[in-house]
Amino acid sequence: MAANLIKAGHEVTLYNRSPEKAAGLGGAIAASPAEAAQGAEILFTMVAHDAALRELAYGERGFIASLPAGAIHVSCSTISVACAEALTQAHRAAGQRFVSAPVFGRPEAAAAGKLFIAAAGAPADIAACQPLFDVLAQRSFVLSDVPARANLVKLSGNFLIAAVIESLGEAMALVGKGGVDQRAYLDLLTSTLFSAPVYKTYGNLILEQNFEPAGFAAPLGQKDIRLVLEAGEGLNVPLPLASLLRDRFLTLLAQGGEKLDWSAIGRLAARDAGL
Amino acid sequence: MAANLIKAGHEVTLYNRSPEKAAGLGGAIAASPAEAAQGAEILFTMVAHDAALRELAYGERGFIASLPAGAIHVSCSTISVACAEALTQAHRAAGQRFVSAPVFGRPEAAAAGKLFIAAAGAPADIAACQPLFDVLAQRSFVLSDVPARANLVKLSGNFLIAAVIESLGEAMALVGKGGVDQRAYLDLLTSTLFSAPVYKTYGNLILEQNFEPAGFAAPLGQKDIRLVLEAGEGLNVPLPLASLLRDRFLTLLAQGGEKLDWSAIGRLAARDAGL
Amino acid sequence: MAANLIKAGHEVTLYNRSPEKAAGLGGAIAASPAEAAQGAEILFTMVAHDAALRELAYGERGFIASLPAGAIHVSCSTISVACAEALTQAHRAAGQRFVSAPVFGRPEAAAAGKLFIAAAGAPADIAACQPLFDVLAQRSFVLSDVPARANLVKLSGNFLIAAVIESLGEAMALVGKGGVDQRAYLDLLTSTLFSAPVYKTYGNLILEQNFEPAGFAAPLGQKDIRLVLEAGEGLNVPLPLASLLRDRFLTLLAQGGEKLDWSAIGRLAARDAGL
Amino acid sequence: MAANLIKAGHEVTLYNRSPEKAAGLGGAIAASPAEAAQGAEILFTMVAHDAALRELAYGERGFIASLPAGAIHVSCSTISVACAEALTQAHRAAGQRFVSAPVFGRPEAAAAGKLFIAAAGAPADIAACQPLFDVLAQRSFVLSDVPARANLVKLSGNFLIAAVIESLGEAMALVGKGGVDQRAYLDLLTSTLFSAPVYKTYGNLILEQNFEPAGFAAPLGQKDIRLVLEAGEGLNVPLPLASLLRDRFLTLLAQGGEKLDWSAIGRLAARDAGL
Repeated sequence: MAANLIKAGHEVTLYNRSPEKAAGLGGAIAASPAEAAQGAEILFTMVAHDAALRELAYGERGFIASLPAGAIHVSCSTISVACAEALTQAHRAAGQRFVSAPVFGRPEAAAAGKLFIAAAGAPADIAACQPLFDVLAQRSFVLSDVPARANLVKLSGNFLIAAVIESLGEAMALVGKGGVDQRAYLDLLTSTLFSAPVYKTYGNLILEQNFEPAGFAAPLGQKDIRLVLEAGEGLNVPLPLASLLRDRFLTLLAQGGEKLDWSAIGRLAARDAGL
Repeated sequence: MAANLIKAGHEVTLYNRSPEKAAGLGGAIAASPAEAAQGAEILFTMVAHDAALRELAYGERGFIASLPAGAIHVSCSTISVACAEALTQAHRAAGQRFVSAPVFGRPEAAAAGKLFIAAAGAPADIAACQPLFDVLAQRSFVLSDVPARANLVKLSGNFLIAAVIESLGEAMALVGKGGVDQRAYLDLLTSTLFSAPVYKTYGNLILEQNFEPAGFAAPLGQKDIRLVLEAGEGLNVPLPLASLLRDRFLTLLAQGGEKLDWSAIGRLAARDAGL
Repeated sequence: MAANLIKAGHEVTLYNRSPEKAAGLGGAIAASPAEAAQGAEILFTMVAHDAALRELAYGERGFIASLPAGAIHVSCSTISVACAEALTQAHRAAGQRFVSAPVFGRPEAAAAGKLFIAAAGAPADIAACQPLFDVLAQRSFVLSDVPARANLVKLSGNFLIAAVIESLGEAMALVGKGGVDQRAYLDLLTSTLFSAPVYKTYGNLILEQNFEPAGFAAPLGQKDIRLVLEAGEGLNVPLPLASLLRDRFLTLLAQGGEKLDWSAIGRLAARDAGL
Repeated sequence: MAANLIKAGHEVTLYNRSPEKAAGLGGAIAASPAEAAQGAEILFTMVAHDAALRELAYGERGFIASLPAGAIHVSCSTISVACAEALTQAHRAAGQRFVSAPVFGRPEAAAAGKLFIAAAGAPADIAACQPLFDVLAQRSFVLSDVPARANLVKLSGNFLIAAVIESLGEAMALVGKGGVDQRAYLDLLTSTLFSAPVYKTYGNLILEQNFEPAGFAAPLGQKDIRLVLEAGEGLNVPLPLASLLRDRFLTLLAQGGEKLDWSAIGRLAARDAGL
């Protein structure tokens, strides 16, 4: 993402906890989050989870301490609704602006500037970010003027993908144990009603049991379902299918699946069926 | 389907329990299933459930009694695996041939000859039917030489659709109660990862609560999930997501949903969330 | 049960599909169900499932054909609601009377005349059976004047026991993986809030993994949960916990658990937890 | 509990955030947690949740700051495993001792000194507390030398109670809709296999729909199931029945059940069944 912004002519200062990852992209290198934020107009963050973002944001060396008043923090990470709400307040208290802009897309899509962005925040703030979104994404969607709602959307999207994995896992276990060729079955599905890429991608991963190396590791899937359930709890929305997914992920992790792709939960139905 | 076969130049004799439904299509009208089967090379059946098919097939006036030796019965209905297995044996005992060829597609697709056919049976039998499949369907898939396996595939396909309905229902309840505009949310989903028609169709039905008149009524959905679970039981394949769907359909029926489209289970998550 | 009736001075004619099982109890031996029913005032049946009872009841050599008008059939088996309803009608059509009286209790309790009986039927019919119930059971309960309702009660009782097994299985997996001594844990539970015998019995079976020989085999447990779910379907009552139990039993059977006691489902939570 | 300790002759200093609740019991009144802990040999705490306990424990006016080295903190609250682990470390760092001793029993049992205590901690520490446990409880159980494990046991106990409520709720919905008198049904259950008080108590609450005033309010039940699930997540133990209970509690809360007794989840099966 940073490389694309640089290539598009923007002046970018980079900070990464592993400095070698920031090197060679062409941007200036900051020694701390605070230094990266100094004088910035727009600050992008992209990290793995709440804790990493909080570590960058808060405290003496955190970016909130040094981001100029009126500047915008654009958070692209898949974080909890609660974390986004806390950041919204912290930035407001500091006279700064906050936009949540989580992304959909695998690393290849990010490299190609072909992400999808789900953005939420004050309309003027999003408008200010739009030219940058256009560099990073093939399309961006504006969902709400409350930033944390974009995070809810992103989390629910990952829930929907996990639901596809589970449903394919059950269906493939059923027809497979019933003697149907699973490849022909998948071909039928993805040539007809289930033509979305998500069915093709995950159907093949389950079929081939191609879970290593992980494109998106099981602990991250488990974390996202936990965040979905927490969001549901905060809103009093029961989510029985998400609960089922939770138990699938814990089963996978309990059996040594830490390093596997999250689609490995799609094999648990087959395992339970004795396949 | 019959109209398309007639239009394609085939000689067709029709039987329907409600004779007026068979009239006007251009084919000869038979007074009983047995009469319809007399002298036939290929007999198609399309009914609502096991019981209806058994009623047509067995007994003195049933078609098994009169179908010529060597003729083929092509069953297009969504029936149970057990029912298809019983027919396989009954036809074999009578020196007849049996092909299972359940279809995917709404009535409009049937009228346009744009169904999808999931066929299973002896290769020679399927080859004999292929020219007729080409009239009825935009594409047909051959899945196995054991007829009942096509029924398993068809049932699992309906399970996958119901899983989409449930997952969308939960996701829309979550983001909706969280303040996100559901139409914008659906637009994002179906423009990105979930571009399959099934998401668009069912997402809109849930969004608009457009459940009447039913395209596919809730009792039929409930029946199909029951047949999926029965197939799973016969094979010792646990199917927790299908179990969840079962309970959703019973909840819907318990609350007066008999006449609603099966996608109305996609509102139950919202109802449980107090929306 | 028969031995107890004989010991109490009743004149008993016995029929068992394995004649050696009826020999030596002191009663006359009949060569067929029809012969056993000839001239009887009250006919007791106790078999493993619907199919066995239907085989005894119907047809030329079945007991309905020969039971005198006005005589009572007392069904003690754990059968489906639908099977009991069919028998109610068949006996009525034959001028006979029908009482459902399923029992709770292991074989030792039957031998000691210490069963519990859950009876339903016309009050006069039950009154006529009461002296015999008093021989067989430590206590009998009258639940309804519709016989099949006693079967619903019996099935729901087995559901409640299976629910205890599942809940104990999850709790023991949790505290066990958390480092708590499971025996001390069970002692605490059964000495305090969970003092019912069912917790002691099944807690110990799970703790000791003492699943062979089966006191009540897994396929019978699976069958009873299926009948509970079928009854729920007939009444449009969703039963999510019963659905969970269904999937547990299928998982157990899929992994070679045919010969194990049904309490072996209480180990699946531990297995999923990697214990 | 404090009254019983005072009555038994112990010298007690009391602290309650609502001072009027501490008045009149006969003990000295402290103005802060820190003051209450000064010079104490054994400090008991009993509060509603983690946050309340953390507020009392930590910070300048918290009791950790003033409890003498070698003194024992006995935590009787139903708190999370993580909270108990944090306290274990904090007390160790301060040279103090920590015992977890959550209790089972309603307020009446506490008043009568008839609680059950589930204790865990270093054997010498528990031995020092034993005379006090004997005042408070009819029986105490020692479960582990790791304090937090007692909290896991307590949470799992509440899970087991909630499982009883759910299973009774489903069974009563099933037999009730099937025409069986629910009171006779409960009488049968609790006179036979399910004779534990928990079935009688909760069965009657569900039967009478006697949910107000709450003996144990729904939000507390929801919290405890959340803590059970969190403990399961920390240990990678999937708990599908706990997941079902979670969704039941959220459904109840979403529909205005905040003030109801937690046993009100036992009505949701009936509601779903249209009763």
